[in-house]
Amino acid sequence: MITCGARLEAIAVPGVPLVGAGADVPALVVRAIRDAGLAPADGDVLVVTSKLLSRAEGRFVDLARVEPSARATELAGAVGKDPRLVELILRESSGVSRQAPGVLVVRHRLGFVVANAGIDASNAVPPEAPADSGPWALLLPEAPDASAAAIRARVESEAPSGTRVGVVITDSFGRPFRLGTVGVAIGVSGLPALWDRRGEPDLFGRTLEQTITALADQVAAVADLVAGQAAEGRPLVLVRGLKFDPVREPASALLRKPEEDLYA
Amino acid sequence: MITCGARLEAIAVPGVPLVGAGADVPALVVRAIRDAGLAPADGDVLVVTSKLLSRAEGRFVDLARVEPSARATELAGAVGKDPRLVELILRESSGVSRQAPGVLVVRHRLGFVVANAGIDASNAVPPEAPADSGPWALLLPEAPDASAAAIRARVESEAPSGTRVGVVITDSFGRPFRLGTVGVAIGVSGLPALWDRRGEPDLFGRTLEQTITALADQVAAVADLVAGQAAEGRPLVLVRGLKFDPVREPASALLRKPEEDLYA
Repeated sequence: MITCGARLEAIAVPGVPLVGAGADVPALVVRAIRDAGLAPADGDVLVVTSKLLSRAEGRFVDLARVEPSARATELAGAVGKDPRLVELILRESSGVSRQAPGVLVVRHRLGFVVANAGIDASNAVPPEAPADSGPWALLLPEAPDASAAAIRARVESEAPSGTRVGVVITDSFGRPFRLGTVGVAIGVSGLPALWDRRGEPDLFGRTLEQTITALADQVAAVADLVAGQAAEGRPLVLVRGLKFDPVREPASALLRKPEEDLYA
Repeated sequence: MITCGARLEAIAVPGVPLVGAGADVPALVVRAIRDAGLAPADGDVLVVTSKLLSRAEGRFVDLARVEPSARATELAGAVGKDPRLVELILRESSGVSRQAPGVLVVRHRLGFVVANAGIDASNAVPPEAPADSGPWALLLPEAPDASAAAIRARVESEAPSGTRVGVVITDSFGRPFRLGTVGVAIGVSGLPALWDRRGEPDLFGRTLEQTITALADQVAAVADLVAGQAAEGRPLVLVRGLKFDPVREPASALLRKPEEDLYA
């Protein structure tokens, strides 16, 4: 059973620093929530940017140390990108979805279709980097569902007994057909990824496929708005107003099977 | 200049009834806001479901009165849908994007790519319908940008002088690659459809395409969450926490040009 109250709030939780490799993200999250005077309540969803996790996991790569394969070099020529970046993109991917000058959309090893394998080239420099190093790239986190679960366990262990929260790890993805990026869930714990609102029959007495809501993606979109321009300064957003029974459902529940995807 | 505060709120505004053809939506919106004790403030965005507008515009169609063309009948056979519904879908569209058993994705006459031309088959019955009529379908609104502008003008005229709000007309769309629907903007007034957050150079000194946020779509996603299961009862959501200079930018600003779309 999932419901949304008549008022939904998304609150940027201050006090989470721009971390480097080795940072304890669950501890940072718990401390930031406490320092902000926000007591986690049943149904709260904590939304964490992938960038915070990637930095904490040390997913920085110095392109100067990447040796592009022949395939990466050829593909880089075709799309007009740095061969070392293309090498990283291919290593992070299970296949290319579309390529064109300036564009390289792949299926990420975690299953989702995303430009450049989600590799971030802004603010990707590790704190300890020598001045003459780089350029740097930042890969997506290793296992966002597991990271979400670890954050959830820590938050719940510090909250009043029996409190159940959700955690969503987000990234900003582009889309076919439509311009601009939107927040999407690449890791989930506790919160149902999908919200099955079926029940009403359609014209023909069948249930409507369209009434399954991408709950975790829409929560990610809310948080992405609040992260706003100051993305570096707002890596943690609390979304309050949902009620749900905690589930074990990975972010991959949001993915169409490639063989059922008419646009794959 | 666009900003989002550290707290974003989405509030379902109660008191908007399930209307029939001829309802004055701007008047309904103003009255519901006032009755809820919500004074519109600068930067507020009023989000209205397409279904409310469609009903007010009388976009109901009795399928019993639809004569399918030969093409609609053939296509209906291929995808396993009612030929009369397929006829309506084709009339509302400029072309078919993908077809498969059970699936008919088209480019709507308004430009966006959507399953079934956004035609709704649930709660599509007009209030005055005879018991033996139907089945009924509900088409998307005629001109959502113009409807958004009319609502905005009415809200601003009743608000303290100089108050500037945004209005978004939403629908729930499916997506390639990912399961579940998300709220998208099919009409916009005042609010910038896109939020250009570029400025930081990427690895190669260029600006990042990825830092343009689909602002109106993300606002639509927030509202879609709040509309929740009770979609019929929550056709109006107030989103508070953004600041923006009002612009004239249609919802089509969110659409990729077909010739630039690798998935078209």
